[in-house]
Amino acid sequence: MRQSQLFTKTRKEAPSDEVSKNAQLLIRAGYVHKEMAGVYDLLPLGLRVIEKIKGIVREEMNRVGGQELLMSSLQRKELWEQTDRWSDETVDVWFKSELAVGGEVGFGWSHEEPIMDMMQQYVASYKDLPASVYQFQTKLRNELRAKSGIMRGREFIMKDMYSLHATEEDLNEYYEKVKQAYLVIFKRLGLGADTYVTFASGGAFTKFSHEFQTVCDAGEDVLYVHRGKNIAVNEEVLDEAVKELGLEKDQLEKVKSAEIGNIFNFGTDKAAQMGITFASKEGSKDPVFLASYGIGITRALGVIVEKFADEKGIVWPESVAPFTVHLVGLNSDDDAVRDYTDGLYTTLTEEGVEVLYDDRDARTGEKFADSDLIGIPYRVVVSKKTQEEGRFEVVTRKTGEVRFLTEEELLNDFMPTGTEEDND
Amino acid sequence: MRQSQLFTKTRKEAPSDEVSKNAQLLIRAGYVHKEMAGVYDLLPLGLRVIEKIKGIVREEMNRVGGQELLMSSLQRKELWEQTDRWSDETVDVWFKSELAVGGEVGFGWSHEEPIMDMMQQYVASYKDLPASVYQFQTKLRNELRAKSGIMRGREFIMKDMYSLHATEEDLNEYYEKVKQAYLVIFKRLGLGADTYVTFASGGAFTKFSHEFQTVCDAGEDVLYVHRGKNIAVNEEVLDEAVKELGLEKDQLEKVKSAEIGNIFNFGTDKAAQMGITFASKEGSKDPVFLASYGIGITRALGVIVEKFADEKGIVWPESVAPFTVHLVGLNSDDDAVRDYTDGLYTTLTEEGVEVLYDDRDARTGEKFADSDLIGIPYRVVVSKKTQEEGRFEVVTRKTGEVRFLTEEELLNDFMPTGTEEDND
Repeated sequence: MRQSQLFTKTRKEAPSDEVSKNAQLLIRAGYVHKEMAGVYDLLPLGLRVIEKIKGIVREEMNRVGGQELLMSSLQRKELWEQTDRWSDETVDVWFKSELAVGGEVGFGWSHEEPIMDMMQQYVASYKDLPASVYQFQTKLRNELRAKSGIMRGREFIMKDMYSLHATEEDLNEYYEKVKQAYLVIFKRLGLGADTYVTFASGGAFTKFSHEFQTVCDAGEDVLYVHRGKNIAVNEEVLDEAVKELGLEKDQLEKVKSAEIGNIFNFGTDKAAQMGITFASKEGSKDPVFLASYGIGITRALGVIVEKFADEKGIVWPESVAPFTVHLVGLNSDDDAVRDYTDGLYTTLTEEGVEVLYDDRDARTGEKFADSDLIGIPYRVVVSKKTQEEGRFEVVTRKTGEVRFLTEEELLNDFMPTGTEEDND
Repeated sequence: MRQSQLFTKTRKEAPSDEVSKNAQLLIRAGYVHKEMAGVYDLLPLGLRVIEKIKGIVREEMNRVGGQELLMSSLQRKELWEQTDRWSDETVDVWFKSELAVGGEVGFGWSHEEPIMDMMQQYVASYKDLPASVYQFQTKLRNELRAKSGIMRGREFIMKDMYSLHATEEDLNEYYEKVKQAYLVIFKRLGLGADTYVTFASGGAFTKFSHEFQTVCDAGEDVLYVHRGKNIAVNEEVLDEAVKELGLEKDQLEKVKSAEIGNIFNFGTDKAAQMGITFASKEGSKDPVFLASYGIGITRALGVIVEKFADEKGIVWPESVAPFTVHLVGLNSDDDAVRDYTDGLYTTLTEEGVEVLYDDRDARTGEKFADSDLIGIPYRVVVSKKTQEEGRFEVVTRKTGEVRFLTEEELLNDFMPTGTEEDND
């Protein structure tokens, strides 16, 4: 993409009411636009990153046999009354409205109830189990407080998966498989090293639930971490967990963290509440076992910005960057240099490299500052000097490392390898 | 995908309150689930079709330089008050709710106002124009009536594009380019032959607006069509248009139709209302020119079902079908036949052919009936007999044509050609 054509420009300032680092940077670099507190539009650059994150999550969910679908945002009151989750006393984040034809309607802040209700249409017997479906859904939550930028919005994108099983063993086995898939996802997102499977408060069915928490100063949770044993405990269950897991409190490090995923074992609770059964092999009508698995897609993006940004701007891991290469053309008033840079842009693009090409008529300093702010992993600079020398300056955004490569070396370096994994 | 693993099965009956043919078929075949009147979940098969439609629209929007983004669903009251479109008297399809922090919030039924408001952040001078952005957005509309299945929902997916221009000439030129792109899209969706650029009631700025209407008995509009001259007029402007275009009323054919797209020239009206200007070359502050361009994505799906379905079920054009080939394995109790069919499934899939493989342990009649209902373009039948003869029965869903092909001929026939266009 030519930057002169890109819709959005960098901005000097974020809105004065924006207090979070992630939103400030994302707004200044042109990734998102603030619609109101906790509500952000995804501009072209931001949508590209979101689609990269979704792509990684989708691959891993498909790998564990999940099937993608899309539930509605509009919610039936009757359905949520069955599980006593309609009233504002039990769920305090509902947005609700009146239907023109009469009656109340809700807006999806979660989808467990409609998913279960829908799935029972297709799950009649043990032969139809297990079943696992997921969606990328815009959730709407009437949060009282929205000060964490895109890490905690009133409107945000979540991947939620639901699996139904005939037996507890089958659920447990699948639950473990998804847990591993989640670790792969966070590794691929560049968050692997700082993301912990965390013991948190459980439901009626299990002592602890599992959260995926990423150590992050901007997070709203507090963890106690044993880095050596790779164990983390949410503050809310610290005493219980320490006893249960045989830990010493004073060996644990207290850190702030952001919950970017959770998995939850409902056992047969939800099915019992909603009257959802299947015919077992023996012919009895048994309640199905349910587990749910969430990942905050927009939150993951916010966490990535918070964790890796430096004083100059955003730093994207290669796996989710909007482009791999930021091609910065200097001396663009010199026709020969411009033609040469145009040619390199064409070559790289044709080779399948994702390139943002700064072809703007702007000062060098402005181009470099914008490039740092936008945070694309590799900056390739073409100037009269580099053209004459037949080598390009390649700067790695993350480390600041500078290399001088020939065109051939450049192409070899950036050619998409076809592997899915991010090797950062 | 193996059909035994597919989440959803065909159903004998649609819900008794479902009166539209498109939703009845889509529910029975397992493409959608009815959440409430006018609100449907997209199940895995349905989501696949929607993504195919979106893919075609995305390609053509990118081709005319549109840049994809995603606006929020939540809407600020103040913004819509500027254009006098907040009150229920002027817009009767709003869903509204109360924010927990106080104040009203709306849910997006359209996005002209927030798009304009956002775009003014990035459009300061004539150098920033033209600009063209689009989104695939879930629109929420509090419709009083919802009896047309997914053709007119309370929740539906729409592609909406917006272009800003410095001059009327530039707008007109782009408007014409998008009009042509729309015709390409509807052709690729298989709807080209019956879709007319239709004269409809215009805004303040133009005498007529342009709708894209597809002749369809289930449609809610009435057109007067001159097939020879390739002209169509919406009933609402018949008298005016007949006079203006020099037509004779008795030469026009009256047909029912569905509006699947529209393009609208706002001129400078919206900018004037919202106070959005740009600095011209001469330094004056001028209001920008705006046009908007919509396509009903879920509606297009509904229209395709309505138009092509026959008494046996859905008939998909190849370009939007969830799979290209429905591989139906018979005699699956015979290990040799089953192994052979499994192998063919693997080969086709590895060659990049999208295959739904009916590997279920079911009666032949049931398999064929389900296959007809689901409507995949080509059915390939493998049985003991076809295996022995080394030829497969290939049935074209649309025409019923039966061919007997060798494996080599089969592969040649279905190998993806890499062309984008649907050659129906």
